[in-house]
Amino acid sequence: MTTGTATTADHLRAALDGPWGEIREQARIQLADDKFAGDPYLDYKVARARVLEQMRVIATMGYAERGFRRENGGTSEPGGAVTGLEMLAYTDLSLWVKAGVQWGLFGGAVENLGTERHREYIKRLISLDLLGCFAMTESGHGSDVAHLETTATYDPDTEEFVIHSPTPSARKDYIGGAAEHARMAAVFAQLITQGEGRGVHCLLVPIRDENGADLPGVTTIDDGLKGGLPGVDNGRIVFDHVRIPRENLLNRYADVEPDGTYTSEIENPSRRFFTTLGTLVRGRVSVGGAAAAGTRVALSIALRYALKRRQFSDPDSGQETVLLDYRSHQRRLLPLVAKTYALAFAQNDLVRRMHLVQTGQDLNPSSQRALEKRAAGLKVAQTRHATRAIQECREACGGAGYLTENRLVGLKADTDVFTTFEGDNVVLTQLVAKELLTAYSDEVRDLDALGWVKFAATMAGDEVRKVTGVRQLIQRLRDGSNDSIDDGDLARRAVQLQLFADREEYLVRTAGHRLRARAKDTTPFEAFNNAQDHILAAGTAHIDRLVLEAFIEGIEDIQDPDARTLAETVCDLFVYSTLEENQAWYIMHRFMSVERAKAVRRGVNELVDRLRPEALTLVEGMGVPESMLHAAMLDDASVFERG
Amino acid sequence: MTTGTATTADHLRAALDGPWGEIREQARIQLADDKFAGDPYLDYKVARARVLEQMRVIATMGYAERGFRRENGGTSEPGGAVTGLEMLAYTDLSLWVKAGVQWGLFGGAVENLGTERHREYIKRLISLDLLGCFAMTESGHGSDVAHLETTATYDPDTEEFVIHSPTPSARKDYIGGAAEHARMAAVFAQLITQGEGRGVHCLLVPIRDENGADLPGVTTIDDGLKGGLPGVDNGRIVFDHVRIPRENLLNRYADVEPDGTYTSEIENPSRRFFTTLGTLVRGRVSVGGAAAAGTRVALSIALRYALKRRQFSDPDSGQETVLLDYRSHQRRLLPLVAKTYALAFAQNDLVRRMHLVQTGQDLNPSSQRALEKRAAGLKVAQTRHATRAIQECREACGGAGYLTENRLVGLKADTDVFTTFEGDNVVLTQLVAKELLTAYSDEVRDLDALGWVKFAATMAGDEVRKVTGVRQLIQRLRDGSNDSIDDGDLARRAVQLQLFADREEYLVRTAGHRLRARAKDTTPFEAFNNAQDHILAAGTAHIDRLVLEAFIEGIEDIQDPDARTLAETVCDLFVYSTLEENQAWYIMHRFMSVERAKAVRRGVNELVDRLRPEALTLVEGMGVPESMLHAAMLDDASVFERG
Repeated sequence: MTTGTATTADHLRAALDGPWGEIREQARIQLADDKFAGDPYLDYKVARARVLEQMRVIATMGYAERGFRRENGGTSEPGGAVTGLEMLAYTDLSLWVKAGVQWGLFGGAVENLGTERHREYIKRLISLDLLGCFAMTESGHGSDVAHLETTATYDPDTEEFVIHSPTPSARKDYIGGAAEHARMAAVFAQLITQGEGRGVHCLLVPIRDENGADLPGVTTIDDGLKGGLPGVDNGRIVFDHVRIPRENLLNRYADVEPDGTYTSEIENPSRRFFTTLGTLVRGRVSVGGAAAAGTRVALSIALRYALKRRQFSDPDSGQETVLLDYRSHQRRLLPLVAKTYALAFAQNDLVRRMHLVQTGQDLNPSSQRALEKRAAGLKVAQTRHATRAIQECREACGGAGYLTENRLVGLKADTDVFTTFEGDNVVLTQLVAKELLTAYSDEVRDLDALGWVKFAATMAGDEVRKVTGVRQLIQRLRDGSNDSIDDGDLARRAVQLQLFADREEYLVRTAGHRLRARAKDTTPFEAFNNAQDHILAAGTAHIDRLVLEAFIEGIEDIQDPDARTLAETVCDLFVYSTLEENQAWYIMHRFMSVERAKAVRRGVNELVDRLRPEALTLVEGMGVPESMLHAAMLDDASVFERG
Repeated sequence: MTTGTATTADHLRAALDGPWGEIREQARIQLADDKFAGDPYLDYKVARARVLEQMRVIATMGYAERGFRRENGGTSEPGGAVTGLEMLAYTDLSLWVKAGVQWGLFGGAVENLGTERHREYIKRLISLDLLGCFAMTESGHGSDVAHLETTATYDPDTEEFVIHSPTPSARKDYIGGAAEHARMAAVFAQLITQGEGRGVHCLLVPIRDENGADLPGVTTIDDGLKGGLPGVDNGRIVFDHVRIPRENLLNRYADVEPDGTYTSEIENPSRRFFTTLGTLVRGRVSVGGAAAAGTRVALSIALRYALKRRQFSDPDSGQETVLLDYRSHQRRLLPLVAKTYALAFAQNDLVRRMHLVQTGQDLNPSSQRALEKRAAGLKVAQTRHATRAIQECREACGGAGYLTENRLVGLKADTDVFTTFEGDNVVLTQLVAKELLTAYSDEVRDLDALGWVKFAATMAGDEVRKVTGVRQLIQRLRDGSNDSIDDGDLARRAVQLQLFADREEYLVRTAGHRLRARAKDTTPFEAFNNAQDHILAAGTAHIDRLVLEAFIEGIEDIQDPDARTLAETVCDLFVYSTLEENQAWYIMHRFMSVERAKAVRRGVNELVDRLRPEALTLVEGMGVPESMLHAAMLDDASVFERG
């Protein structure tokens, strides 16, 4: 199974590594050192200090510069930046979060929302001379960013902004870095000037002095222990009329003149708000990648365990049976591997698109918005999958899986918040569906929370269809196929993709119908709420289809025939197990006969059988070196060897 | 909604409290003291010491005595013992595990497997003068208890047993109490006398001296940090030819005479093994109860949060919307509440049955075995539900849910191992199915791991059917109904139960067919493995049916009309959401038309709508006093109040 000296696993790994594979390879060597691994025995205060020390080492290794433009002291490689930082997630998710907050969120806000006058900060934050935090979420408002309560009121007499928390719920909360290390916060606040509210803007607010003491008017509070991520110092910030210079407004999209006059190139306040948030898309892209990293480590551990651990003897052979020889264990883990592969290709595709947009190589005006939707959808898919897969891995390793030294419980605890941060998964799935239901119409973004429901209700059903563009790929797959099997053959990729697209189209169209039918005689909230489960299903179906498309296109780039054949089988398992999860829907909506649904179930069994002998190759293909697994049991004869 | 001074919630709580409600009420008062709550900020070594101190207080309060017979210094109330200890799980799951190991597992082994000569130990272990542990699991063998490797070889010259770990994998592992506190271990080992292996027996082995140092030949090793349960000192034990007196064999079912002659009233070794293990059923019953406790605390927190937390404003009213007013949030949490209620009734029923068997009030010879199956099945259902529900609660509380001070992450971490310990859920589901497939035939227990497959393959399909006995209840429900709605009306309880029974019967029967068909031309392992997913589905369907029966019977005991009506609606939601989860199966096997499946989905939406106004009553009915919630956010104006 080799081509030259490269094994099938090497070819798979190269395919999964994607466009920035060299950065991954380099990181696998650089980060294998135990000094970058987490130490769960440390008190959380000590763990935070250690992670900061680790970051100081990382800062000297070029990981940060990639994320910033050349004029700001970076190397202008957004795709490489996300990929490089993602590699930190393989070794310690606290380190990844801390680095992501500093260089991705705080640094990203300064670079993307600021202008020349903020350039000085960027060099300092790259080198960690300036430690920052990203103060968006408040105790009272998380998902609903538009209604944050913190105020930034302009005072023309002193040419300062006054940052204030007017209510208890205006308190900034869960802010990484706010508890201990951050000296400055990128604060999202309602800008008020000349007596008028101008919506949410971002301003740089110094919060601690050189000794780490809160500055006057600033009160920071430690969020304390969390479910995981012990090395991240999350905290709260309360502002009591804190004054900052006018120039600390990050003024790329709007500015306040010395006399208090508000100016902005983007006239529409809602569009300004979404433009501001849109520049932060890299955060969501990154969370998806880190969730994938945690999932791959967990699956690598659980599969390596399942390939060696024996339990219960086969009375015929007298031998104890390896766990992965049990059908239930195969069904438990191998479809998760298949989905992990699918998401890897989708993530590579996403990072590539982000890179093209953010380096100005893709200037299509709709690309930024399509990127945001795709990033939101994939963030949901990756984090939902991580939560489920890592839990399954823990249980599949039994009591050993529960020991911290075997790492699975730490991965579960650390990744658990991923379904929440950078956008709650339910809210993001709705965002995806809303875009589909309103056919990306420009008007929609300017509407408030549920205004889009009214808008969607006015649309003709067919308009939603135009944007998907899946037809081309299906047609190409059909054209490329030279077998004569009838059109409905489930083994054909075009038929599979058609089934995914059918589900998406039907759900989007009928959700639209439902909104229209209800909107006549109820309020927008009632119309929306009545259809909410339907809307969420439409969003999920869309994400599933995008993932499958990316998988199909990713396979086309694999040159090695053995690796490609294996990837095709993995893709089949992804397809069949996704169809199986949704088989009730397919049957109920007459897209699948009962007989075909039974064939899908049998197909999953046949595919896990077929992939069983390739399990180790698939693990190696996921690209987590054994040196980065840090699971004590994998080297423990007491667990595996027989008397 | 009150009868006299009792509210609907009071009536529901009384119903869920079950036969030992007074013990629950007393515990709610006794344990509300903060000194029994967990403290997640303690180092795990300190947490262990604190839990031991808490246990010393509990030991003075009568919780332990209930579990032991009068002649041993107890009060002979097994049902009350399980119920009382379960209440510890509401305040701190580490305390519950530690108490369960000492009084339930270690104490239970001495009481149930020992004889008069071991009576002295029981008084000492009740008072905690003697701290013990339950050393069954080994690093190499967990689920497969019959193949434990530790040996207990009888030496007639000194009238001693020699306890030894002959291989690395014979190391005892994950043993609660082994790391620090236990002075004595109930060790399960292969008994060898006169050169002959006699199978697994239990012996009392002193492991530490008065100062806590390992005794000669004993090496204990700390398992260190785990996913949760920081207050429990799990560890490993390695024995190097440790000598113990002959009398330390727990000799209720078998003995070794001074000259080494082996005697037992139970001739068949396999039956002896299962009789030995059967006496330990209380452990599995208890895990189910503790999982339920964790689930109820989590749901109480998440629902109280969802009833107060607002996010996104309704453009019509201008008001921000309470989370539980969103359809997605209702669908996320309320079916979990319904299942929690269902499992509460099933658990009460199980504890009552256990009490009758263990106090000799139920002498039916088949009852012990039926109890074991039921306990295994309900342990699976409760722990699977806990894992899913607590995870959902965490996510439903967003970032706040991730802070340790809001308790959800601790509940998740502590209960996570419940799907593994006291029997892995996959293995237990198989055990349930095996009993169904072989119609409880006595021969089956004597067969090794897969011998039962051969046996099952010889059985006629109809024999499996006899044991379920569901017909009676269905008939009674039909007779009791005086409406004239046609027989297939999904709202009728008899129709619902029939659907549950149909699924069980069909899956059991066809799994039998499948084993038979395969057994002709493959090995038992292949026949079993090919049908494993089918066998597991049969076990799960059986458990679902038992739970629904218990719910129906539990409701019949509720006298208050309002509480009863509400419980009926909750039961409907449990039924509809279970049917929805299995709708693909029902349609594919022609037990449900597509139209009916759509009606089920609509039914879930209607039921969550109907239960929405009763949410607080349902929370209060679950019986977790606010004083035991320990979730900081619930009293935090920053989270709930609006400027």
